[in-house]
Amino acid sequence: MWKPDRKSNIALYEQIADHLEQRISCGEFPPGSLLPSERKLAEQFDVNRSTVISAFAELRSMGIIESRTGSGTRVSTSKWGATPKNTPNWSRFAEGSNFLPNPAFLRRIREALAQNPSLIDFASGELSADLAPTDEITALMRENAYTSYLGYDNPQGSMPLREALVEYLNTYRGIRTTASSILITSGSQQSLFLIAQCILSPGDAVAIEDPSYCYSLPMFQSAGLRLFRLPVDNHGVQPEDIRALYKKHRIKMVFLNPNYQNPTGTLLSNERRKQLLDIVSELGIPVVEDDPFSLTSYEGVPPQPLKSMDTTGSVLYIGSFSKIAASGLRIGWMVAPHAIVERLADARQQMDFGLSIIPQQVVGQFFQSSYLGPHLERLRIGLQFKRDLLIQSIEKELSGLIEYVIPNGGLHLWCKLIPNISDSKLLEESIKKGIVFVPGSVYGSDLGYVRFTFARTKPEEIALGISRFALVLRQLIE
Amino acid sequence: MWKPDRKSNIALYEQIADHLEQRISCGEFPPGSLLPSERKLAEQFDVNRSTVISAFAELRSMGIIESRTGSGTRVSTSKWGATPKNTPNWSRFAEGSNFLPNPAFLRRIREALAQNPSLIDFASGELSADLAPTDEITALMRENAYTSYLGYDNPQGSMPLREALVEYLNTYRGIRTTASSILITSGSQQSLFLIAQCILSPGDAVAIEDPSYCYSLPMFQSAGLRLFRLPVDNHGVQPEDIRALYKKHRIKMVFLNPNYQNPTGTLLSNERRKQLLDIVSELGIPVVEDDPFSLTSYEGVPPQPLKSMDTTGSVLYIGSFSKIAASGLRIGWMVAPHAIVERLADARQQMDFGLSIIPQQVVGQFFQSSYLGPHLERLRIGLQFKRDLLIQSIEKELSGLIEYVIPNGGLHLWCKLIPNISDSKLLEESIKKGIVFVPGSVYGSDLGYVRFTFARTKPEEIALGISRFALVLRQLIE
Repeated sequence: MWKPDRKSNIALYEQIADHLEQRISCGEFPPGSLLPSERKLAEQFDVNRSTVISAFAELRSMGIIESRTGSGTRVSTSKWGATPKNTPNWSRFAEGSNFLPNPAFLRRIREALAQNPSLIDFASGELSADLAPTDEITALMRENAYTSYLGYDNPQGSMPLREALVEYLNTYRGIRTTASSILITSGSQQSLFLIAQCILSPGDAVAIEDPSYCYSLPMFQSAGLRLFRLPVDNHGVQPEDIRALYKKHRIKMVFLNPNYQNPTGTLLSNERRKQLLDIVSELGIPVVEDDPFSLTSYEGVPPQPLKSMDTTGSVLYIGSFSKIAASGLRIGWMVAPHAIVERLADARQQMDFGLSIIPQQVVGQFFQSSYLGPHLERLRIGLQFKRDLLIQSIEKELSGLIEYVIPNGGLHLWCKLIPNISDSKLLEESIKKGIVFVPGSVYGSDLGYVRFTFARTKPEEIALGISRFALVLRQLIE
Repeated sequence: MWKPDRKSNIALYEQIADHLEQRISCGEFPPGSLLPSERKLAEQFDVNRSTVISAFAELRSMGIIESRTGSGTRVSTSKWGATPKNTPNWSRFAEGSNFLPNPAFLRRIREALAQNPSLIDFASGELSADLAPTDEITALMRENAYTSYLGYDNPQGSMPLREALVEYLNTYRGIRTTASSILITSGSQQSLFLIAQCILSPGDAVAIEDPSYCYSLPMFQSAGLRLFRLPVDNHGVQPEDIRALYKKHRIKMVFLNPNYQNPTGTLLSNERRKQLLDIVSELGIPVVEDDPFSLTSYEGVPPQPLKSMDTTGSVLYIGSFSKIAASGLRIGWMVAPHAIVERLADARQQMDFGLSIIPQQVVGQFFQSSYLGPHLERLRIGLQFKRDLLIQSIEKELSGLIEYVIPNGGLHLWCKLIPNISDSKLLEESIKKGIVFVPGSVYGSDLGYVRFTFARTKPEEIALGISRFALVLRQLIE
């Protein structure tokens, strides 16, 4: 990221004015577009706001930008030709289209984290550096640097990785499958996107848990799907609710996250699993089982997936490397009938022409290495430790203000706030005090819920983060 | 890929029967689904067809599969429960949805190449192993193995790669830009997909070249766009045609591939570039410039992109690592106004949650290394050598049967066949004789065109491949 050179003879404000002029003239900020605020630019360039104000004054005097009180600073249109018609109306393109943006809260959280990396992060659903197998991955890459052909990979994903997954799924998840039933995807996210876009059709009704991370993914709505709710209690969804939704809305698919559900942390009970499989196979409805968290089980024995009990081929199974090792490699997988795998692999070619060969090789090697078992053990201990720290802090700071059920696996603690507080006020005040979390409404719940994710947070920050949150909450109650 | 164990005491047909039974029972082939043909399985397992026939007989006797003359072999439905209702109707899911599959010819070519890797390949638009910088990439990965945090990357793509691209684009493409105007994508393909899905809307009219690789991408139709043609002559498209299409259909965007166009190899003339930029900026229509081939220029000085002449911010520029170095790393880039980059980065989070960090690091390092210049030099020489071999063979074998214009860069030779021949017969007979190419109709052209791609073909195969093609063509004429 560009910053002004403090050793240069040229004044800081002049350097900034030059830099902004270049960005404007190369089309980054077209005529008529809004520039970032003085405050934001000052943060980015690591200078006082007054320096940015001077730079803006310089650009204004050259006719390059125009400011109007209350509506920010814009690139002037007169400077660039006779009429603003000369440049496409980019902002209309950026706002158009049927593909919905991410929820405002999630974009706000992303922006806050980008602006202030020292925020205490209870929002990001990923592992902290100390929980990821960084040294192991580095070692594998050093020892086995990629030396093969650098051309396009098999559309289904690399064969050695799929073969390693056949073994992993059998050993760790009780799933018997073959390489040709596996599609490698860019995390679970791409599996879900492909299902929503390429095997469902606009207008189709689908059932999802309530609350559910699916509500945080506008891609379901972008695909024109109609979403119906399966309320989650302490033992997961009620299988009979599926039958009721089928009768009423002819739902075509059920999306479930049965092991340490996101956001509630709930485990679907064994009894309900059997019932659920009976009902969906009776109705002929497929279930998409997203299973990213089960190997984080703090109880030692991870719950088995629905797919391992599926005798009628009703379950599409989705797994991922992200929540058990490293999200940044972007490796996930789907186990599905071959016709579905082939269809989705073909569609994916049109979207991105498949995944990079290098991370696929690394993950395949990791699964076949002796690193996997010890890493998972360390991960479970580390996550449980952070969960316990979080719960201790909450008991100390928020007693009587918050209710929750202790999860036995996963990355999330789902909390009900007893006082009645606006989601957006709570989030904005918390950001000001130096912490972020995800408001429950992002997951489709009523007001007054909060998801605290403890996987990314550093252990030494947890108590401080919760004490800041308690301060904000108490202030808002008053 | 599984093969029977020839050293085992268990008969080959029994091993195959067991293997297929497992794939059926784990849901890869659900009840009622069609199995691959005996011929295909015999090829896959590397056995005689009679061995597969015996394995099928075994499975039939167990009630697991059913064969009917003329309609192939299916997994039986009776075996798996009271009614076929018990399993979701997967084949209907595989066929449903509004997202269109790839053109039948492209799927046929992919299948033929998968079944017979010794086919002489004039179809794949990628570099052969000897033209890719394999040793350089391996060396970079050994020397600088990834040691940083393995979490999610910046949604726009990794900052070091974007900074390397700012320099590369300035030095090699005459484009001045900044890191915040760049979006890293999975090849050009993902840039095009994001534009089609997320800044255009169903019903929008867009202009594309005729012929154009855009016709090979049903994603434009899947996004509901209406496509209008700009005929390509020896100097590219006629700029005035854009105005005519705008008047008639209110086109909202123009997609161009002005440097060594795919499939025709044409270079848009300088005069037309200026005219074109004047017209689009007058009309306020953005141009998407896809520029994968220009650095392959055999003339020494690569043509400059439209973007480098764009003074009104009308051009969205797309580049890629695929055609100049390695397609398997899946790295491409888009240069666009910041509002567009931000919008597409947000949308992409919902599709795949961003790209893997490792290949981004490798490509960034490659661009900043001393490998880049010498590699490009070697690439140009290697491609020109293969182009010349191809043209020599065509002159020798196909004189009077074929017309073409010699391209001065790129990977493709676009040929008009003088005799009137069916595309599908020509392709099928060629596959039988051991070569593949892409029929011109895939690019929206009339019958009787062929695209020969010479980048993937080995030099020693080119003459043999063309003599086989000539044989097929002469047989079909008779």
